[in-house]
Amino acid sequence: MTHVHAFAAPDATSPLQPHTIERRDLKPTDIKIEILYSGVCHSDLHQARSEWGPSIYPLVPGHEIVGRVVAVGEQVTRFKAGDLAGVGCMVDSCQHCDACAEGLEQYCENGATWTYNSRERDTKAPTHGGYSTEIVVTEGFAVHVPETLDLKGVAPLLCAGITMYSPLNHWKIGKGHKVAIVGLGGLGHMGIKLAVAMGADVTLFTTSQGKAEDALRLGAHHVILSNDKAAMKAARSSFDFIISTVPTSHDLNPYLVTLKRDGHLVIVGALEPVGVSGVPLALQRRSVAGSNIGGIAETQKMLDFCAEHGIVADIEMIRMQDINTAYERMLKNDVKYRFVIDMAAFRAEQDQAAD
Amino acid sequence: MTHVHAFAAPDATSPLQPHTIERRDLKPTDIKIEILYSGVCHSDLHQARSEWGPSIYPLVPGHEIVGRVVAVGEQVTRFKAGDLAGVGCMVDSCQHCDACAEGLEQYCENGATWTYNSRERDTKAPTHGGYSTEIVVTEGFAVHVPETLDLKGVAPLLCAGITMYSPLNHWKIGKGHKVAIVGLGGLGHMGIKLAVAMGADVTLFTTSQGKAEDALRLGAHHVILSNDKAAMKAARSSFDFIISTVPTSHDLNPYLVTLKRDGHLVIVGALEPVGVSGVPLALQRRSVAGSNIGGIAETQKMLDFCAEHGIVADIEMIRMQDINTAYERMLKNDVKYRFVIDMAAFRAEQDQAAD
Repeated sequence: MTHVHAFAAPDATSPLQPHTIERRDLKPTDIKIEILYSGVCHSDLHQARSEWGPSIYPLVPGHEIVGRVVAVGEQVTRFKAGDLAGVGCMVDSCQHCDACAEGLEQYCENGATWTYNSRERDTKAPTHGGYSTEIVVTEGFAVHVPETLDLKGVAPLLCAGITMYSPLNHWKIGKGHKVAIVGLGGLGHMGIKLAVAMGADVTLFTTSQGKAEDALRLGAHHVILSNDKAAMKAARSSFDFIISTVPTSHDLNPYLVTLKRDGHLVIVGALEPVGVSGVPLALQRRSVAGSNIGGIAETQKMLDFCAEHGIVADIEMIRMQDINTAYERMLKNDVKYRFVIDMAAFRAEQDQAAD
Repeated sequence: MTHVHAFAAPDATSPLQPHTIERRDLKPTDIKIEILYSGVCHSDLHQARSEWGPSIYPLVPGHEIVGRVVAVGEQVTRFKAGDLAGVGCMVDSCQHCDACAEGLEQYCENGATWTYNSRERDTKAPTHGGYSTEIVVTEGFAVHVPETLDLKGVAPLLCAGITMYSPLNHWKIGKGHKVAIVGLGGLGHMGIKLAVAMGADVTLFTTSQGKAEDALRLGAHHVILSNDKAAMKAARSSFDFIISTVPTSHDLNPYLVTLKRDGHLVIVGALEPVGVSGVPLALQRRSVAGSNIGGIAETQKMLDFCAEHGIVADIEMIRMQDINTAYERMLKNDVKYRFVIDMAAFRAEQDQAAD
């Protein structure tokens, strides 16, 4: 057992604060990663505050982790010390159900082990995430991070990136497809970059005129203000595929009618009820689907795709100590487009303090 | 122009009553059909009462039509006098959009011409449905009716049958699939028969214990009472495909969680808003789709399939004069499972009266 520095939510109502956690000793297939950068996902905040049901406290959030391998177990074959490694939302799964067999560990029928706010399958010890100096994971749930990318912007790919890549990949989006992304935030900005790189014609739906310019800068070909009735009407039956990243309950019908026949609208943001009417679905055999992150092999594929196309997230780097301020700003959508914690700097400070 | 006997809604609030309508003279590709049987669909009632927006009055409902061809235009190649013929929900479409080119006239991008409460593409004359002694349609929108089936039970196949067959066919349901049908009415009872004939393992979801026995008689392999919490819990993640035939706004979430990963729930009944949460969709990449009747070629395929498997609707025959009583009973779900009007008898009475 190693004690490592971390930031944790002590309970559902207090701010995050410094905390010491235990990381397990290396098992034969484990790798130990010194964390360089840790992305800040909205779900970190939700779970820190027990907004998705009661969380396990103290809770160390963070599931967008990039770091460098510093030790490997004796049976590890895919990583060696010095390699870059990434860890996303999962650190384990049952490995024997149909979903796991298909590489869809996120849909594990026995429940995946999440990177934090979850429990180890064997010891039932709580898992702790990336707001910490080190993490130990089985190599099967770590991915290779291309050395060529700006690592700070890679961290958010491990959740925001794969959340958008997986539906685009699963529904085989590419050249010749018209794709729309609803909402420009951490997820939306990745959706634009990825769909554009896949060759699709990409439109952003937003309610904010201020985001239009940014969307075009990010590569979007078109922007539609969803409160512009004439523009919405002109967009009827025009998209093959839409991903809604809106994080709260919202009415899907204005977007559904902009899908072509047999088009899909995929929800990745809202876990709350969404408004759906039978008419726009039935009249052109449209569908609404959900999608949840991506499997480990697909996450690797996504990182390789990002390396090939030079894609990283647009980020704002913060100090670990500023996480509570970052949460408040995140609640006001005051971030373009993802906070990333400089864990390397935090580790250096801790090491210095200990000297 | 020929004058034919019919029953029509004179306005949105009056009962249906005897009415004389004009049927067009045969165009070169037209066939004239003496109607034998006309099914009574819930949408007849909705439109008679302007419940889907203002209808065109006087309105002659009926889009489940079986009859015998009595005359054909000079360019007609697929029918001859004496043939049985069926007409469903559509009598024309643009014939040049992508949907029409794919044989999906129901999704015609320029709007299909519906069998009633619609307007002819050329003359803009209102279309009139099957509650009449004759109909004239272009042969491309008539289907061949197998002589081997009980014709009274064939009429409802033209709407209720194809409405259920089309999603089962489109989503390639067959042997090895677990299918659930929500609701046992005109649509639901056809869904059970068709899905069973396709080789699927079929479950009925119903709130009514009284319908359980009937579902099993119709061929369903299992029945789940949707108000039985333990049974609903046991059914989690067990179906490949669900069709909800519930005609009103309803909460889909209890059914969504019974779908396996990547399963589809198709709405064919409710055109009102349905309750959908992001969680059951995202957690297993499930989807909710809509479906609207079927194309002409698919309708023919459905009739041929029904002939092969000896499938017709369970019906209760009524006299044309009893249509208003039938509507009231339909509103109370007091029909097993479709009313069919004996138009042959009505025509005979009219002929006798005219002698």
